[in-house]
Amino acid sequence: MRSHYCGQLNESLVDQQVTLCGWVHRRRDHGGVIFLDLRDRDGIAQVVVDPDTAQAFATADRARNEYVLRIQGRVRLRPEGTENPNMPTGMIEVLAKDVEVLNSAATPPFQLDEHGKVGEEVRLKHRYIDLRRPEMIEKLRLRSRISHQVRAFLEKEGFLDIETPILTRATPEGARDYLVPSRTYPGSFFALPQSPQLFKQLLMVSGFDRYYQIAKCFRDEDLRADRQPEFTQIDIEASFIDEDAIMGITEAMIRNLFQDVLDINLPEFPRMPYAEAMSRFGSDKPDLRIPLELTDIDDLMKDVDFKVFSGPANAEDGRVAALKVPGGAKLSRKEIDEYTKFVGIYGARGLAWIKVNERAKGLEGLQSPIVKFMEGVIEELLDRVEAKDGDIIFFGADKTRIVDEALGALRVKLGADLDLYTQAWAPLWVVDFPMFEPDDKGGLTPLHHPFTAPSCDIDTLKADPAKALSRAYDMVLNGTELGGGSIRIHDQAMQREVFEVLGIGEAEAQEKFGFLLDALKFGAPPHGGLAFGLDRLVMLMTGANTIREVIAFPKTQSAACLMTDAPGEASAEQLKELNIRLRQKAKPEAGGE
Amino acid sequence: MRSHYCGQLNESLVDQQVTLCGWVHRRRDHGGVIFLDLRDRDGIAQVVVDPDTAQAFATADRARNEYVLRIQGRVRLRPEGTENPNMPTGMIEVLAKDVEVLNSAATPPFQLDEHGKVGEEVRLKHRYIDLRRPEMIEKLRLRSRISHQVRAFLEKEGFLDIETPILTRATPEGARDYLVPSRTYPGSFFALPQSPQLFKQLLMVSGFDRYYQIAKCFRDEDLRADRQPEFTQIDIEASFIDEDAIMGITEAMIRNLFQDVLDINLPEFPRMPYAEAMSRFGSDKPDLRIPLELTDIDDLMKDVDFKVFSGPANAEDGRVAALKVPGGAKLSRKEIDEYTKFVGIYGARGLAWIKVNERAKGLEGLQSPIVKFMEGVIEELLDRVEAKDGDIIFFGADKTRIVDEALGALRVKLGADLDLYTQAWAPLWVVDFPMFEPDDKGGLTPLHHPFTAPSCDIDTLKADPAKALSRAYDMVLNGTELGGGSIRIHDQAMQREVFEVLGIGEAEAQEKFGFLLDALKFGAPPHGGLAFGLDRLVMLMTGANTIREVIAFPKTQSAACLMTDAPGEASAEQLKELNIRLRQKAKPEAGGE
Repeated sequence: MRSHYCGQLNESLVDQQVTLCGWVHRRRDHGGVIFLDLRDRDGIAQVVVDPDTAQAFATADRARNEYVLRIQGRVRLRPEGTENPNMPTGMIEVLAKDVEVLNSAATPPFQLDEHGKVGEEVRLKHRYIDLRRPEMIEKLRLRSRISHQVRAFLEKEGFLDIETPILTRATPEGARDYLVPSRTYPGSFFALPQSPQLFKQLLMVSGFDRYYQIAKCFRDEDLRADRQPEFTQIDIEASFIDEDAIMGITEAMIRNLFQDVLDINLPEFPRMPYAEAMSRFGSDKPDLRIPLELTDIDDLMKDVDFKVFSGPANAEDGRVAALKVPGGAKLSRKEIDEYTKFVGIYGARGLAWIKVNERAKGLEGLQSPIVKFMEGVIEELLDRVEAKDGDIIFFGADKTRIVDEALGALRVKLGADLDLYTQAWAPLWVVDFPMFEPDDKGGLTPLHHPFTAPSCDIDTLKADPAKALSRAYDMVLNGTELGGGSIRIHDQAMQREVFEVLGIGEAEAQEKFGFLLDALKFGAPPHGGLAFGLDRLVMLMTGANTIREVIAFPKTQSAACLMTDAPGEASAEQLKELNIRLRQKAKPEAGGE
Repeated sequence: MRSHYCGQLNESLVDQQVTLCGWVHRRRDHGGVIFLDLRDRDGIAQVVVDPDTAQAFATADRARNEYVLRIQGRVRLRPEGTENPNMPTGMIEVLAKDVEVLNSAATPPFQLDEHGKVGEEVRLKHRYIDLRRPEMIEKLRLRSRISHQVRAFLEKEGFLDIETPILTRATPEGARDYLVPSRTYPGSFFALPQSPQLFKQLLMVSGFDRYYQIAKCFRDEDLRADRQPEFTQIDIEASFIDEDAIMGITEAMIRNLFQDVLDINLPEFPRMPYAEAMSRFGSDKPDLRIPLELTDIDDLMKDVDFKVFSGPANAEDGRVAALKVPGGAKLSRKEIDEYTKFVGIYGARGLAWIKVNERAKGLEGLQSPIVKFMEGVIEELLDRVEAKDGDIIFFGADKTRIVDEALGALRVKLGADLDLYTQAWAPLWVVDFPMFEPDDKGGLTPLHHPFTAPSCDIDTLKADPAKALSRAYDMVLNGTELGGGSIRIHDQAMQREVFEVLGIGEAEAQEKFGFLLDALKFGAPPHGGLAFGLDRLVMLMTGANTIREVIAFPKTQSAACLMTDAPGEASAEQLKELNIRLRQKAKPEAGGE
């Protein structure tokens, strides 16, 4: 029905007849002539309808915004002085010979160019309108391209695309499952997978050697700022490989992707042990675009006459750290108060600081509420953080976890607020994670999942499990975890030992992952893998502000779809067939917000 | 960890050192030497371990079937006379220098080469073992390749891969939905999609122009022979196209696929109206490899003195048809009895027949229990079906639906039993479907779905809806429906008229598909699409016997996964969070069969 997409028109087509199909993006009458901006997924073209072509003119005259038209006409250069260099098609226009209305359109609930003034709820309710915005089309088009490039790369590397079930059994990620009542087994439930983890390991046991899947995963969690109940994972697993091999392949995949899709040559990915990342950046996903670092000063603060500092400095699980911000002395009292409030979110009970106005003047040159307690150590402190005139030094002193989180977050916020970025893209691998972390009950819980292999042997693990490191790795880009994975345990004795450390009895292990444990008995190869969050990757690559901008039909924070009104009511008959009843009736506002 | 896959070894590598990783497929001792067949996903290589290499020999000596080994050695030609031309690697072997056990294996529940003797239940329970069979690996590898080629083709044609939600609202396909209780909206439920139908139409309204997705779909039906509760669809939709365009693109896609993956050049796809398919083959998915056809003989049978024939011949909804089988006179009485039983499955109350032993002899030359009733019309009948000596003619006389189904199925069965196939692949398009079919209550129900566009205008539709044809099309290959679709209604007045014909009131339409109807108001383009059943396509292309052979982790007929034991029990706490309780307790056998 068309000869070209609107966005494809350019000077090379001048004097050619073209047929376009699309939507009226804007219509104006000017000097007795009608100008239509016709929009399709590739762009916008200006169509001129002259009263000379009477029928075309009459049709164009009744066209309104978002009408669907088919236009036949001739491409010509725009008259001198009327070119629009901001539009890819801005040098030309189409003189219409024929205008056909393919469909009319009621006045949309909001105009595309006014979306900024319209609340997200209205836009989600009429998602099909909001998706018409060229930015939205562009983001989803890029998403399609990213998926395609990822597949092409993995295909070339010999990975097989294998689908795993959606109706399955609870998986070991530990988040809350979505359940699906079974009709054929009354009282039983499927779980939607939190990841294909167990299945991909089974595929390795079967000998598929290299597996990938762009897989839907599900978690019924209370949604934090930017999560979705269903999300998409680039899921990868391979056999007879070690961490260098799998990190090498997936790093190449991401580098290729950035090259192909964004024409960006990512720098090499440094590898950083978890302990170093926490110590220097207070985060296991440090944003290395920001040239700020945490500096340990426990040793200096052990004996100061300031309990807020000396307490954590002497406590085994405490930390005192400094964060120097070059040029930060210009921050106002109000700004510092804001940052103090900000670190409070992470549990910090205050935010001590020193402004270095003129180091040469000694204490006189410093401005700070707390410097008086530090007289004996101040010079060593300033030397250690390499303080210069005009800097500010922030302090964190608390339990290590709180200091890391508060100063880590502050570092990222300062980087953004003060625009300290030294580079556009800063990728890295974080490695050498601990196998376990303490849980609430004084026991240990896996930092990843219980199939992650330790980097030590079984005796070392047994001797001091809390110190054991794992063969896990996370890929981090600009402070976002793009993906993570590990070499898995393929040895039964090791798997038993890990379960023992975790206090998982044989019966519980059998109940939860029996089929995987069985499978490991029958000749499991050494294997490992990785999963990338596709939504987050696309978000980073498109510069989107929320994950909802890169998902065609996203859900709200309360896991509802405002467009389809899902979830909705089920009939009594349906519930009976599924052998369930409601504890309380559906609330009338269900499905909305 | 390896230099080559086992299956990659050949004469070109003779005298080279190689490293292989894989499973012990078979082990034999022969003349003091150990022979190991080492298996990986690419094939099997013979490894020879000589007692001279003492350590390798000792290791190989304790290796059992399905042990995971790493072998280093030198490729050499097999001694003359011991080559195995049936194996791709049968000309060479690897003389091991080093043998390393990467993992041991308990004796598997069944040996791979004995799978034929093992029930499917056992194999499904230990699916990770069954998947080790080279045939299974090959089928899933081909599936991966098929998905990849489909994507590559559609990508090249400008289709965008867009993901649609899994947690959504009931869709209009009309089968039973899988429901997912919502925790955040107590008493409300998501439905898993039976297809992305509504979403893909919305994407057209948004202007994405060309969409595709390899999408998981779900139907909670009592599973017939070869269905799965979750299945995979190649889902396609495009705007500003007509049926010729979309049929052209998708036909090219399938032809390319067969060419690329199987090196098969499919013939051109003829187009056959639905009415013709039913009349000539008794089926809307005729297997054109079989050169048998139904012949209408109502006119001849109107006045015969045999009510079984004259009744249906005179009834408005009746049909009398003949099916001539060349050379079929050799069928035994017992075989004919079997076929009579067979058509009984489809509701036929008998199977009349005439054997044409010697046409020249007139009635004498015919053998039949019914020919006596046909004296006056027999010559015209024999002429019409072009009967020759040695043929058999079967008859169907009943309601049209029963005759079509019974003789249609008999035709296919005879084709297989007597191996009548004239070609390996016989594709076609079936077109011109009726818009509606009668439902149980004397009304009309859509043959496809209520968004399918009619091929007539609104007034003609209104005048005689039962006669209206649709703009739907099915692609059929070897008697299997590979896919189907239609041009959709994009005009609101037409959509309202179709709902009226279907007796769907405005309130009901709004409740069920309100968001789609809303969307159609705001400038919907002309659009249409198609969906292919990927599982079935792969089944045909791999020559698999059941759909379960081309799905990595399939479910049983009662929708259970024997390996993971899904569905399983949910805890009281989980149910409470989801605001549901059980009507009756889970049965202990849940999850098994």
